[in-house]
Amino acid sequence: MEKIKIGIIGLGTVGTGTVAALRRNRELINKRLGASIEVKRIAVRDIRRPRQVDLPPGILTEAADEIVHDPEIAIVVELIGGIEPARSYILAALRAGKCVVTANKALLAECGQEIYQAAAEAGTEVAFEASVGGGIPIIKTLREALAANRILSLLGIVNGTCNYILTRMTEAGLSFNEALTEAQKAGFAEADPSLDVEGLDSAHKLAILATLAYDTCIPLQEIYVEGITAVEPLDIRFGRELGYVVKLLALSRETDGGIEVRVHPTLVPEGHMLASVREAHNAFYITGDTVGDILLYGQGAGAWPTGSAVCADIIDLARAIRRGKKTRLGPPSFRQPRRLLPMEEVVSRYYFRFSAVDRPGVLSKIAGVLGDHRISIASVIQKGRDEGGSVPIVMITHEAREADVRQALRVVNRLEVVTAATKFIRILEGQHFAPSP
Amino acid sequence: MEKIKIGIIGLGTVGTGTVAALRRNRELINKRLGASIEVKRIAVRDIRRPRQVDLPPGILTEAADEIVHDPEIAIVVELIGGIEPARSYILAALRAGKCVVTANKALLAECGQEIYQAAAEAGTEVAFEASVGGGIPIIKTLREALAANRILSLLGIVNGTCNYILTRMTEAGLSFNEALTEAQKAGFAEADPSLDVEGLDSAHKLAILATLAYDTCIPLQEIYVEGITAVEPLDIRFGRELGYVVKLLALSRETDGGIEVRVHPTLVPEGHMLASVREAHNAFYITGDTVGDILLYGQGAGAWPTGSAVCADIIDLARAIRRGKKTRLGPPSFRQPRRLLPMEEVVSRYYFRFSAVDRPGVLSKIAGVLGDHRISIASVIQKGRDEGGSVPIVMITHEAREADVRQALRVVNRLEVVTAATKFIRILEGQHFAPSP
Repeated sequence: MEKIKIGIIGLGTVGTGTVAALRRNRELINKRLGASIEVKRIAVRDIRRPRQVDLPPGILTEAADEIVHDPEIAIVVELIGGIEPARSYILAALRAGKCVVTANKALLAECGQEIYQAAAEAGTEVAFEASVGGGIPIIKTLREALAANRILSLLGIVNGTCNYILTRMTEAGLSFNEALTEAQKAGFAEADPSLDVEGLDSAHKLAILATLAYDTCIPLQEIYVEGITAVEPLDIRFGRELGYVVKLLALSRETDGGIEVRVHPTLVPEGHMLASVREAHNAFYITGDTVGDILLYGQGAGAWPTGSAVCADIIDLARAIRRGKKTRLGPPSFRQPRRLLPMEEVVSRYYFRFSAVDRPGVLSKIAGVLGDHRISIASVIQKGRDEGGSVPIVMITHEAREADVRQALRVVNRLEVVTAATKFIRILEGQHFAPSP
Repeated sequence: MEKIKIGIIGLGTVGTGTVAALRRNRELINKRLGASIEVKRIAVRDIRRPRQVDLPPGILTEAADEIVHDPEIAIVVELIGGIEPARSYILAALRAGKCVVTANKALLAECGQEIYQAAAEAGTEVAFEASVGGGIPIIKTLREALAANRILSLLGIVNGTCNYILTRMTEAGLSFNEALTEAQKAGFAEADPSLDVEGLDSAHKLAILATLAYDTCIPLQEIYVEGITAVEPLDIRFGRELGYVVKLLALSRETDGGIEVRVHPTLVPEGHMLASVREAHNAFYITGDTVGDILLYGQGAGAWPTGSAVCADIIDLARAIRRGKKTRLGPPSFRQPRRLLPMEEVVSRYYFRFSAVDRPGVLSKIAGVLGDHRISIASVIQKGRDEGGSVPIVMITHEAREADVRQALRVVNRLEVVTAATKFIRILEGQHFAPSP
């Protein structure tokens, strides 16, 4: 049986899952592939450290360069994460004529074009299923299964940490800090959770997906990013009363004005499939002009699920290599510039929670300001009184422009009767995402 | 730009969707593929019939053989359905060295091995994403994304007609016949719905999927099939009271005794993602030993979604053909015989609804029979009295063997106090499907 040799750089969580899966299901993979995958070398920082997977003696090296330049190795698997030295290893491997598999979302979000380009120039391929959504085949679905679709919208719950925290805030009434502490204890959040809870991890993933969905370069810094640290239990409760669940969505859609790319807490209608995605799960809800609505759901992180995706990429490339080819899809098409819609121009419905003194005329004053800014109100909840003598007033708006909303809230927040900065959350409307045919 | 010429046999619903999608998204597909797909000929039964898609003059032919033997055509797309003449066209096209795309589930379920074999011998490929699940990439996910996984279980809502009918029975309290009539009016059921409601369509799809999941030949006649015609609103209501939703599941899983393959109405726990799949949607819930649980969801039928899947297969093959290759995956591995678990040996929890006279001692009599057959009871509901003076007694069992259940119910149904044949529905237990790692 033909042997295809691979080298792995990095034996952390994902590397361990990958090696363990290749080993456990070796026979099955051989049968499906019609060839055998042999892990020839694994580069690690410290070869003496104990490992959670059985390894043949001598397979570890501290010199990643050996892998990158080994003429027997056909596929280099980069699993160290971060920009450097991952970027240099990948570029060197591609230039040495090797196929590359990577799970490195930060690198692809920041330097994707450079890497896709280098693969194209070398006549080889870079595969990156594991960079987004763990074992969920979102990259394959976008690049292959939906290749005949114009993607009208893509909605993702792409960060398991945030979804776990929001789930616990919703279901157990915890505060953000309580839920974060619990997530850290349960192993769903890092000691320094900022990359997750501030939304940057979600933005990395959205940059990768939107580039594929819209065949254009999506610079990371053009993505509007708002994390979940300011989400309050009170807003989750009001949201539920109104029939919504708060989720951190990574959202991209095509509008007449341009492509929207944004990450922010969102009120998702209870009946929407994304509202059922609980705890650390990830999900992608894609609307294509031909396929209609598709949902992919599963575990978005962890050694095994992510290892499953890395292995799938290795097998895909091995199938091409067996046929004497080093590419199967070619690079994503990203050269056609397209207008990205500035956040100010986004149109959405909004949830507002005003804090105001409990006095006649307050509601009309606030509504007046909104009206002056072309914002019309769909429904209002006003009840209770908090300890400071001020009351929460909750409103759901009809469609409004983000710029108008920001301007209106600046004015509202300066009103004498308003006692604290107004909270607002954007609302996902199902009907905007219906398929066109 | 390189041109890849294809021929299409059949211009019904799916053929029309395919041609319309290729035309509408022509530029997008060219850009993603790096080549252009040209529909050279389309074979139809009657070239004079009006068509719902604009066609260049002269493209239609009544001679499918012209397509099969046209040396310029690289990919033959079979969309006529049924066994013959579809089988002969596909075999001839493969032997003529062409790649084949088909949406023909009945043919693959009955003659899949012959067709996969013919493709392997010809050194070409047959692609069949559209045969199951409309535009949902279930075939690609099983064959590619989960290639490194042992599939522990696969649960599918694979028939939109049945799911629509069950949804309406559940949500509007309709009887089976009322819901069927409504489905027919809404275009979700055929005039002769028996292939759908009797479960055979689901069995066709399960045969295809289980062959891929378990790398073994799954003969259609080995699949246990029970449709939804006997599902009663009363059982749906009791199910809901107990926290379950009735779905027609196509189910395949690996157990110590062998592979289970079965299609039947199933009580799905309300919290399970499959319980949220409404109306004519399809969904697949797969548990892999490495990836854990994955759900794919979308529209399982219709011109556009199914056309999306056909186009994806065409693009996949065109990507290989551009690289000078006629295969990309090779045939599914199906040669290793594996034991299929006979239905009698299946272990499940069960829902029973007994109809019995309302008299002291009845419950203990029934429970006694169950006990004699190693069936233990987890919970009981008894209430009300129907017009004939008999009462429904509902029980949920712990795990029991199907053979014991059938034998016990034969005895129960002969009891003097029992007034009608006992209804039973198998229960899906989430915990049996948890990932192993």
